[in-house]
Parts: sequence; C-alpha cells; structure tokens
Amino acid sequence: MIIVMEHNATIDQLNRVIKYIEDRGLKTQVNNGELLNVVAVIGDKSILNDESIAALDGVREVKKIQEPYKLVSRVAHPEDTIIKFPNGVKLGGLERPVLMVGPCSVEKDFEGLLKVAQAAKDMGCQFLRGGAFKPRTSPYDFQGLEEKGLQYLARAREKTGLLVVTEVMDTMDISLLCKYADVLQVGARNMQNFKLLKALGRIKKPVMIKRGPAATIKEFLLAAEYVVANGNPNVIFCERGVKGFDTHFTRNVLDIAAVPIIRKFSHLPIIVDPSHGTGKRYLIEPMGKAALVAGSHGLMFEVHHDPDNAMCDGAQSLNIEQFKEIAKSFNKLIGRIDYDNKNNK
Amino acid sequence: MIIVMEHNATIDQLNRVIKYIEDRGLKTQVNNGELLNVVAVIGDKSILNDESIAALDGVREVKKIQEPYKLVSRVAHPEDTIIKFPNGVKLGGLERPVLMVGPCSVEKDFEGLLKVAQAAKDMGCQFLRGGAFKPRTSPYDFQGLEEKGLQYLARAREKTGLLVVTEVMDTMDISLLCKYADVLQVGARNMQNFKLLKALGRIKKPVMIKRGPAATIKEFLLAAEYVVANGNPNVIFCERGVKGFDTHFTRNVLDIAAVPIIRKFSHLPIIVDPSHGTGKRYLIEPMGKAALVAGSHGLMFEVHHDPDNAMCDGAQSLNIEQFKEIAKSFNKLIGRIDYDNKNNK
Amino acid sequence: MIIVMEHNATIDQLNRVIKYIEDRGLKTQVNNGELLNVVAVIGDKSILNDESIAALDGVREVKKIQEPYKLVSRVAHPEDTIIKFPNGVKLGGLERPVLMVGPCSVEKDFEGLLKVAQAAKDMGCQFLRGGAFKPRTSPYDFQGLEEKGLQYLARAREKTGLLVVTEVMDTMDISLLCKYADVLQVGARNMQNFKLLKALGRIKKPVMIKRGPAATIKEFLLAAEYVVANGNPNVIFCERGVKGFDTHFTRNVLDIAAVPIIRKFSHLPIIVDPSHGTGKRYLIEPMGKAALVAGSHGLMFEVHHDPDNAMCDGAQSLNIEQFKEIAKSFNKLIGRIDYDNKNNK
Amino acid sequence: MIIVMEHNATIDQLNRVIKYIEDRGLKTQVNNGELLNVVAVIGDKSILNDESIAALDGVREVKKIQEPYKLVSRVAHPEDTIIKFPNGVKLGGLERPVLMVGPCSVEKDFEGLLKVAQAAKDMGCQFLRGGAFKPRTSPYDFQGLEEKGLQYLARAREKTGLLVVTEVMDTMDISLLCKYADVLQVGARNMQNFKLLKALGRIKKPVMIKRGPAATIKEFLLAAEYVVANGNPNVIFCERGVKGFDTHFTRNVLDIAAVPIIRKFSHLPIIVDPSHGTGKRYLIEPMGKAALVAGSHGLMFEVHHDPDNAMCDGAQSLNIEQFKEIAKSFNKLIGRIDYDNKNNK
Repeated sequence: MIIVMEHNATIDQLNRVIKYIEDRGLKTQVNNGELLNVVAVIGDKSILNDESIAALDGVREVKKIQEPYKLVSRVAHPEDTIIKFPNGVKLGGLERPVLMVGPCSVEKDFEGLLKVAQAAKDMGCQFLRGGAFKPRTSPYDFQGLEEKGLQYLARAREKTGLLVVTEVMDTMDISLLCKYADVLQVGARNMQNFKLLKALGRIKKPVMIKRGPAATIKEFLLAAEYVVANGNPNVIFCERGVKGFDTHFTRNVLDIAAVPIIRKFSHLPIIVDPSHGTGKRYLIEPMGKAALVAGSHGLMFEVHHDPDNAMCDGAQSLNIEQFKEIAKSFNKLIGRIDYDNKNNK
Repeated sequence: MIIVMEHNATIDQLNRVIKYIEDRGLKTQVNNGELLNVVAVIGDKSILNDESIAALDGVREVKKIQEPYKLVSRVAHPEDTIIKFPNGVKLGGLERPVLMVGPCSVEKDFEGLLKVAQAAKDMGCQFLRGGAFKPRTSPYDFQGLEEKGLQYLARAREKTGLLVVTEVMDTMDISLLCKYADVLQVGARNMQNFKLLKALGRIKKPVMIKRGPAATIKEFLLAAEYVVANGNPNVIFCERGVKGFDTHFTRNVLDIAAVPIIRKFSHLPIIVDPSHGTGKRYLIEPMGKAALVAGSHGLMFEVHHDPDNAMCDGAQSLNIEQFKEIAKSFNKLIGRIDYDNKNNK
Repeated sequence: MIIVMEHNATIDQLNRVIKYIEDRGLKTQVNNGELLNVVAVIGDKSILNDESIAALDGVREVKKIQEPYKLVSRVAHPEDTIIKFPNGVKLGGLERPVLMVGPCSVEKDFEGLLKVAQAAKDMGCQFLRGGAFKPRTSPYDFQGLEEKGLQYLARAREKTGLLVVTEVMDTMDISLLCKYADVLQVGARNMQNFKLLKALGRIKKPVMIKRGPAATIKEFLLAAEYVVANGNPNVIFCERGVKGFDTHFTRNVLDIAAVPIIRKFSHLPIIVDPSHGTGKRYLIEPMGKAALVAGSHGLMFEVHHDPDNAMCDGAQSLNIEQFKEIAKSFNKLIGRIDYDNKNNK
Repeated sequence: MIIVMEHNATIDQLNRVIKYIEDRGLKTQVNNGELLNVVAVIGDKSILNDESIAALDGVREVKKIQEPYKLVSRVAHPEDTIIKFPNGVKLGGLERPVLMVGPCSVEKDFEGLLKVAQAAKDMGCQFLRGGAFKPRTSPYDFQGLEEKGLQYLARAREKTGLLVVTEVMDTMDISLLCKYADVLQVGARNMQNFKLLKALGRIKKPVMIKRGPAATIKEFLLAAEYVVANGNPNVIFCERGVKGFDTHFTRNVLDIAAVPIIRKFSHLPIIVDPSHGTGKRYLIEPMGKAALVAGSHGLMFEVHHDPDNAMCDGAQSLNIEQFKEIAKSFNKLIGRIDYDNKNNK
C-alpha cells in the first residue's frame, strides 16, 4: 500500500499517518518526492482499512498494490477450475466450449419448451436454460411461472438429458431451485445482492453469475469471491454486456475483452451471452463467434419455439429453424477450437 | 405505438404486422414514407407486447409513445406527494427540505452513534441514517451489526426524536426492519431486486429507493412503480451518482439533473446523497448545495464521530465538527429556499 | 417524423404545430391517443428542422423515422464498396481481410522502421502504419517527426511495396500528406473535426476514420457522410474502442459489435484496431481474432522493433518476434475466412 | 513513480527494470511484498517514459504519483488566475460570476442578434456568444455565416459594450477570429485538437475550452496545459456535460462536480453551460443555479430572438422573454454569492 500525501501536508500530518500504521504493527518507509511525499507500508496490509487512511488529514490518495480478490485469483490458484457435471459434461479450462440455449422464460406451453429442448439436444447443446422466476424492469410485464416452470424444465431434462440452468432471485427460493436445477444463475441485476451470493456459497450446485450492467471486472470477480469464500468453489462467470452511451443499435456493449481478462486473472470459467449482450437477433452469430475465438468457455443464447408470441425478449430470440442454422455455424467453430486446444494440451 | 418497417420489407410482411395488431382488437394506420413505411397503432396499447412486434419479420424498430410508468407519473397524478411522518415531519412538494445524517454503518460503540445523533438533532436535522445490514463489494469487509444495530438506532431515536432510515437487503428482513425503522432504504445495488420491491409494496412504512449506478431515470421510475403498484404509495427517490468513465477524482457522477427531471415527470419526492455521489469529503458541501437549489427535497450524507476509525466509507464521512460547519451552511440555504417556496405557494 | 405532444398541451398549441408544418408544404395526420396526441408528418421531411419543432410550445418529443445519413447508408447503396489500391490490394466486401502494422510513431531510427516493414512484408501484411504527426494528450510528450517521418514511410514503401497509412491532424497538412501516404487516417480525437472531414472530401486518396472515444455509431456514420458528401467515396471505418466505466484492465471498451452493425447499415468497409482498443499487448491476439470472425475487413495494430524504448504506446506494442507469432495466428484465421467468403460469393 | 511487478516475475526481470531506471540516473528502492514486489523510483521522473517501463517484461502496472499537468495546477501556482478584460470585466477567483448569452449560431437577421444583445445588456450580462463557424454532426445542417457572422458580433459589441465569445474550429481561422472576438472558444469536439490548442497558445486573447463529451478531468486539464505551455496563460474551462448511458431525458450528463474539483486542483476559472449540458430548456434554470452555488465563475447559455425558427439548437434556447425571467433568477443568486465572497475575501 502506497500513501500519497498532499503537496501542502504538514510534518505533523505525515507523522500522524506513520503513527497510525505503526500502531497497527506495520512498518513504513517514506520517499520524499520533488513535490509530494509518499509513505510505503510494509507487512500484512489486510489488517489495514484503506478508507480510514484516506480519511486522515493531509492524505491525497491511497494506492493499493494487491488486488482485493484472493480465492478466485490465479495468483493463489494457478490451474484452471473445471466444473464437472454428473452426466460427464465439463466446463472450463481447455474443455470443449458448451452451448446453453432455451427461452427467456418458461411459459405455459410445455410442448413448445420440449421442441426447443429437443432441437438443442439434436444440435449437440449441453444445457437448457429458461427462467421460472423472472426479473422484469416493469411491474406490468410477465413475472414467470415459478415452481411450475421448474417442473417443466425438469421434465424436459428427463426427456433429453440436457442440464438445466435457471435464475435464482431470492434467498428464500434457493432450496426449491436446488431440487430442480443443475446450475443456479444469478441475474445481472442481482450481481451485488450480497445476501444472495453468501447463501449460494453454502450450496453444492454450481452458480453462474451474470455481470451487472455497470459492474467493473473487479466487482465481477469480487461477486464470485463472495460465493467461493462462503464455501462453494464452482462459479461460472457470464459476460452479458455493460451499459454504454449508445443504445440506438444495441441494448448493451458486449465486452468481449472480459473473456481473456478473466481467464488471465482468474482460474474460473467464463461464458458469454450474445442475446442479452446485444438485444438483436442478427448479432447473435457474429458476436457468439467472436466470444468463442476470444476464449469463451461457452455461449448462452435465447431460442423460442414461437418468438413472435414469446412472453419476453422476442426481438432477441431465435426460432428453431434460425437456431439450427446458427448452432451449425457455432459447432463448426467449436470443433476447430476444441481440436486446437487438444493439440496444445 | 409506431412501428417502422425495414426499407426492404415486403408487402406480405407489412400485412402480417397489420394482422397481428388487428387480431388483438386495435386499429392501424399506415403512413408511406419516401423510403420507409410506418404503421401507427390506435387504441389501448397496454395489451400489446412491443417485443413481440419487434420480432416480426420486416420490422426495423418499435417506438413507444407513452411511458411505461403510470402510477408514479405526473400525467396520472398531477399533485405532489407529500409524505407525513408521525412526529409531524413532512417530505416532498414545497415542504422545507430535510437533512438525513449518520454513519455509513452502525458500529459497536453506541455512545459514538449517540454523539452523532445528538449533533444532528442540535443542527435541526430530521433523520438519523445508519446501516445495520451492510452490502459490501468485498466479502472481507465489515457486514454490519444486524438486529443489534437496529436496536441502537431505535435507542438513539428515543433519546433525540430523530426519525430512523436504514437499509433493507433481503425480503426475509422486512418485518424485523419495520419494527425499528421509520423509512426502509433500498440500496443502489438492489434497485432492481424486484422480489424486494414487490414485498416493500405490501408494507406501510415509506420506502426510499437509491438509484442504481447504471440505472436510467426510466428504470429508476419503474423501480418505484413496483412498490406503488403493490400497494405502498410512499416512495422517496434518492439520487446518489451513476457510473461514469472518470473515476480519478470521484467514485461516481452525481447526476443533479435527475432532481428537476424526476420532479417534472413524477409527483414523488427526491433527495440527494452527496457522500456516495462523489466519495470525497470536500465535495459534500458544494454538491449538497447544488442539489438543494436544483430542487432536491433533502440531503443525506455521512457523519461519523471518529471517521479515522470508521468501519466503512471513512474517506467520505464528516466528523462532528466538520458536520456542524456544513450543516450551518446547508441550513442557511434551506432557510432561503423554504422562504421562497412559502412565498410562491 | 412523429411529433408527440405533452399530455397537457392545448388545442391552440397543437394547431400551431400543424400550421408550422403545413406552412412548409407538408401534410399532417393527427392520432389522438388515450393520454397523448401525436402528429405524423407526411412528405419530404428533409426541409424540416426537427430542433425547431421540438422548441414549439406543447411539444414533448420529436421522433425521427429516417436516419440522417444517406450516402453511406445501405438503403441508398446496397452493394459493398470495395476500395482498390494501385498495387492491386482490395479492401471491403468479401475480399480477403487485410493487416496494417507498424509503430505508433515514426522515430529517428529509420533502420528500425525498415525492420518492422520487412517483417510485415514477410508475414503477408498489406499496409505499413506509422504516425508522423502525433496527437498527444500531454504537451510534454513526443509530437512526431513531421515531414521527415513521412519521407521515412515512403522509403520503407519503396523497399517493401507496402501501402502507407498515416494520420492527418490539420487541414494545412493535407496536401503534404497526399504526396506520401496511400491512406490518410483521421484520429479518434478528430472524428468530429468537421473542417478536416470536409477538406478530406475534396481529395482522391482513401480516408480512414477512427471512431471517437465517445462517438455513437450514428455519429461515426455521419463523420463518414461528411467526407463522402464532399466528393470522396473511399472511406474506411476503424473501430478502436470507446470510453467505458472500467479502466482498470483496459484503456477502452473495444466495441466489436460495431463491425456487424456498420456492415449491416453501411456499404463501406470497417477494420478494427485491437492495440488502442485495449491498451494491452496480451489482448491483441484474442481481440483481433474476435474482430475478424465478427466480419472485420482487416486489423491494425502496433509493432515496434524495440518497444522498451518506443516514444509512445510501448505497453501495447508488439516486438518483431511477438508480431510474427501473432501474425501467423491471424493469417491462419484470415485464410479460413477468405476460403469461406469465396465459397459463399 | 511506483512499479508493481507480476507475482511470477523473475529476479532477472526485476533486475532489468532496476537497471533501466538506474541507467537513466535515477535511484530505486525495492519493497518486497507478501505476493508482489514493488520498485519505487526516486529522483526527477520527468525524464522517464512510463509507457516504456510498462512494456518491460514482468511489469504488472506503473502507478504515477505526480499529476502530468504542471502549469495549470495549483501545486505550482496556488493563487487564482483572474482574467481581466479591457472594459474592466474580471473572470475567476472570487470575482462576481459572469453571464455569457446569445444564439447558438449567428444568423442572417442582424436585427434579431441585436435584440438578444440588447436584452443581455439590460439584464447585466457581460458577454455575447454566438457561432460564426459551426461544427455540426451532420453535413446537411447549417454550417455558419463565417466572417459575416463575426462582423455582426462586432457590430453588436459596438452597440452594447458586451464582450464577444465565439468558436474557433481551425488553425487557419485564428488570426481572423482575433480581429473580432474577445474570447476564442474551443468546441467540445476539438478539445483534443492539439494543433489548434498549440496555435492558441501563441495568441494573446483568452481561450475558453469546452470539455469533450468523453474527456476525463485530467484530459481537460491537459488540454489547458497545451495552451498555457505554449505561452497563453488566460484559459477558461467550460463544463458542458459528458456522455452518459441515459439519453432519454437529457443529451448529456452535466458534471457539476467538475466545478469544485477544477477549482481545487487548478487556479484557472471555470464556467458552466447548462444549455448544451442538458439539451432542454426547462433544465437551464435549476442546473444553472446548481452550477453557481457549486462555485462556477459564470454561466453560458443560449438565447434566441425566435427559437422556433432558429437554425440550430432551438429546443434548448430561450426566447427573450424567458431569458429575462431566468436572468432575474440568476442575478438574485449571483448577488448573494458575490456578497458572501466579498465578505470572505
């Protein structure tokens, strides 16, 4: 930790900073700059509160050297985490990238869901996604089928063998969701719902965290740190776009660079959602492919048996025919990536 | 609702759009532009799902004319909502702007909290704020005293007569918080925790919603709509800064314009938090004053009896002496604004 | 054009809007909504000033149906523009994606530049880039070799056959640059230097416009419209990242989605710069590949013979060895894309 | 300067960094952290290129302690710069805040301009603003009257005694503008047109720099540094809003906090433009007042004798009657601020 003093800080203020640190059993080293004095702190800085130091008189800025995330960091855990599912599917590291598809929300028409699941199975996808509890910006929009939706997903899993990914919105629903889902997804708007993250640290099922629309990558990593620090090591990141200043052509800016960054600084897997990331059907294919070549461990996107009559996100959903076309293109690229990965192992 | 067709849309696609709308009992009017055709929809558009229309082939864009928020809008409710508290304090409209002060989090030292509360009372503040349940970005930071913190706040209220504002983080804690608090605050990171918003619609205590760091004003209004639509008309907005591209000097960009905008489009009160909005102690006074002259119904900011040793947000907290100085400056301005408001009533 | 009236607009105000439009020879159609009235304008809207209409009393909002860019739009010009260079290189459409490489700025050491150019030639690149006039955020940074730098670039072209891309910063330098360069580049900070754009419309050399760090895609398209409307049809877009709220890991957010969006809405070519887009050497390869599979017509990135001693942008430059490694990887992907494009022609 | 090494950097890499610095005549001090090693640099860091250091192998991050702006900083120049105009008007420090008003662009109707100027004079304003050269996003919009517009402004100055502020767009126009204008304004889109900034450093007239829509405060300060470092000490900052993610209600986010920040870190004056900052007429008054109480040295806003027929920015311009109403409100507040400032001098 580096403490930069104001150019007009008094000697008294400097001494008070030094005393504050040494009182806590750490050592200091003062570098006298041309204009500014700097105090370097030596020892275990985790016992210091940097906000308190920043609040001392005469302090201009506190610069932290170490990152605040520990368990999710590659520094402490250099090997890739690979999540293994009961049916043999693996996610992360140099494993074959996966596809997660399904409707935005599970709707009353079970046969429709089954059609999507069957097509997903046919195209080699590994996961069926679908919301039973839906977070909607407007209270007047469809809010989800709740438990009935979960039952539908479980029935579709029985028939196809696909793994089920679905969103958890509240700590009260966790045990219910664990009965039905293979992966519990934390929605973007809940990325910093810390009560929820802590509770998810106490379960055994893998947790997928979607990036908040204004979350920095550091905040994204710290959200995962909450889950891991509470006991659950199986966390998947999901990049789904961040708020930008241009909303004319896309809903969000899909931050593809998050993929190689997260892979460099963390050992946990990351997938990308090009449906929510862009909000446009015509962008799913180019952006999905871009994510894959940038190193994404998988893609999640929306498929609906009848998008014109979908209860949500119709404009960004694919119908089954469009899905098959795009899945073919993704599978071709996934095959090449998998081949290259295997030969580099 | 206006539906813009692609320049190369076919007549068949146009007719399908018209049929979709007319099947739902609404009328259409087609305007043939030089390059693009436009379909205007006439009738009660609330039964239409604009995402489904956007998903129809040949549709370029759907433009909505009406805003999706209804109950919080001035269109439906032209008079200001004024929230009245049991002790006679009023918040909103042309009432005297209020001050809400206190530590970021309630800590073990009850005497310290009491010193802050007493100073707040002395300076004419109306509300004591303090977190018992703390949302923290890092799992390694202090997480709050929980119920004990609430008890401390209630005891400070008994001794000073101040109203208590504190944060609710989970639906499971609502009934506990209602026992102790006068206003339940929804934190910025929970602004779109819809389960929480719905549950807060079913209580009687006023709810204060902090703006999410990436929330548009429309999303902010819709968050309040969730609470009001579920039965609780007493909602207070709190602007606290949004994410910007420059984090060198401030943590967030305090969007003062949100104050006159919300006051124009909604009847609900809005206050401003210049502590979180900027993250810097030296900005609390100028930004607090700016918010007040722009029409804010009050200010919320952090005061701690010993900021150097605060468990959180030390760098942006005032100590009691600094607080008194700033409160004097705010009170002078509030007095002028109140005088002007009374003479314009 | 659609004009939405305020909910409390008077009949008089509505009639004044109608008169304003009809006075200018256009027709109107009024749709009476439940809460808001809407005036649709029929006829050639290009003679209307939408800001003036927005300023009329009682007007809530003016919604434009048509895009303001015309010549660069696919609506008016459906076929891809392919730019052909004297040496046979083609850029755009389904042509083989190109590579543009070289140092951030041309420096005194000509032999160093030549090493880079030779390596570029060896690896099959088509363009040598390098700045002779440098825009620098700080006045204390290196400002470029000016004409001498241009001469160095021209000499490197003679020896290698590579085409030269270099930046123009001022209208006064255009004729000088035309003597030496094959493509004149407009820097991101000058994207809306309209005097410069107009002057570049009057030359014959192709112009490459870098996206401004806060430019929307619409503003980007309109910058190209300036050049084309003034007579020069050969414009290349260059996506290089936009300002985001997270600058910890990357300088900018590289907006890969701009590639398929620009290709859908415009006929002009677009390339991507993953060096400036991220500011990090380790991100050039994954992000460059992502851009290519998303449809980029080429990549531009920085190579320096001795990055440790580069005058600018050392941290994001590759040395020659690293360059060769990455170029190999790009060439493999470009070969596949080119093969697929040829088979789809 | 602090150099943070990667956790897996080798001793060799560390020694290479130390050698690099010591070769340049500076001293180093290595702090061995628990996980990361840090090299502190001691001596005159201005001769080091931090990008080159960042490019050395094994370096994770370079943290600069000193700010890159020098001449505009309060560190080197603690007293406020007060700009004095020939007619006695003063701008900056604790002088009475000024008002700059006028149309977005000077138009053919000279009598209209004169009406505005006369009203401005009557209301105690000090400056007449108006564009003769107009930067327009679309090439199809009105581009300004050029020299004729300047002549109109000069004639209006003769008749009213107001000072003239007008925009310079190109180095070629500077000498022409110096003949007519009292302040040369650099538009937001040209804030980093470094050729222009340098050329403006060589004139004697004060220069007002508008903040670029994506410019950080540091970049804003460095733009002024360009002018001052080239010889012209009279620079005025103008905050006019930055790009945000919500463009539904306002064009930009007016960053009022820039005012107290710039005043803390620089000695130069800063004014605020609430017209462009918001793009809405109803926000000029509340945001202008907010800027003034936050410490702005003045306001600039748009007034047009006939906004319904203005060639640009009609929606955010005031007509003369509205202007008088708002000027009255601003003058009341300016009077109070001036009184308080005088008593604190």
